[in-house]
Amino acid sequence: MSRQAGRGTESKKMNSELFTLTYGALVTQLCKDYENDEDVNKQLDKMGYNIGVRLIEDFLARSNVGRCHDFRETADVIAKIAFKMYLGITPSITNWSPGGDEFSLILENNPLVDFVELPDNHSSLIYSNLLCGVLRGALEMVSQGLSSSETEIRTTKVQMAVDVKFVQDTLKGDSVTEIRMKFIRRIEDNLPAGEE
Amino acid sequence: MSRQAGRGTESKKMNSELFTLTYGALVTQLCKDYENDEDVNKQLDKMGYNIGVRLIEDFLARSNVGRCHDFRETADVIAKIAFKMYLGITPSITNWSPGGDEFSLILENNPLVDFVELPDNHSSLIYSNLLCGVLRGALEMVSQGLSSSETEIRTTKVQMAVDVKFVQDTLKGDSVTEIRMKFIRRIEDNLPAGEE
Repeated sequence: MSRQAGRGTESKKMNSELFTLTYGALVTQLCKDYENDEDVNKQLDKMGYNIGVRLIEDFLARSNVGRCHDFRETADVIAKIAFKMYLGITPSITNWSPGGDEFSLILENNPLVDFVELPDNHSSLIYSNLLCGVLRGALEMVSQGLSSSETEIRTTKVQMAVDVKFVQDTLKGDSVTEIRMKFIRRIEDNLPAGEE
Repeated sequence: MSRQAGRGTESKKMNSELFTLTYGALVTQLCKDYENDEDVNKQLDKMGYNIGVRLIEDFLARSNVGRCHDFRETADVIAKIAFKMYLGITPSITNWSPGGDEFSLILENNPLVDFVELPDNHSSLIYSNLLCGVLRGALEMVSQGLSSSETEIRTTKVQMAVDVKFVQDTLKGDSVTEIRMKFIRRIEDNLPAGEE
């Protein structure tokens, strides 16, 4: 399914419940398709990655965010702008590593799990793992953001290899959901200017 | 995945793009899982039905809508409240049958297809068919809506068998997307009072 050309940037604001239930249908389908939770987790991460790679374009076009100068700025943009925009929540940023290359996003309320309880036979399922993939894909993607002026093309590059994983999850009985993000490296830009 | 008890009714407003892309991942997965488009369409309808059956509870709790007295009122609630709430759009209601038992919802912009083009080998795919299932399931469900007062339980029953299908689709080259809804019958309430 490829991207439709000429799509406007007008956005539709919706309540999260239909998304939550549709996501549940996706996870349930994957649990039927794959034999064990680890494979479902991998598939969710992979799907999320593919989504992140596309969502970043939408995000840059919509948010008008420029290049982040360090990982702390990246954390702020993710928590305060991106999560708010696409999930309607603002996680808090905590547990910075001394070197500033790792932090945690704390989700008091994860909208993906609003209607969910994990069945006993899926204790290894990382239910919301799609989110990790989305974050990984979005940060890894070399993307060109068009500015609001049609005559000027502002190139915004987001090129970071980041490790993203759940370390706490309310579905597993933890009091909050915690996503740990670890900066690995900047990715070299091997693309000639003007090409995607 | 069962419903979590004690969930609040606070809602998270989100942009539709993450939902759109996640829905795309679901359809893509089903296209891998099933041999032909007709089976994918059926599965989407079935998933949607299961979602509708649960979403109606959320909808009644949130919207404070009472019992609809006729199908025209139902159409209004669907288009102006439910679509706005869960998809961020307000379809127009047209093409009433003379008997008042059929109408069309016209979606100028279907958020589900924002990033989508149908590949040639999926010409029979009804990409957004989940929506038909959601509408069918929601209207068919006998549901009890809790009023905002915790001491009073207001029973709101929605019990309609309705045929729902796409008759136009921008993905197929039509200028708008049209969902046709046909009232079939009211469903008898066989449940003793006070039970779900």
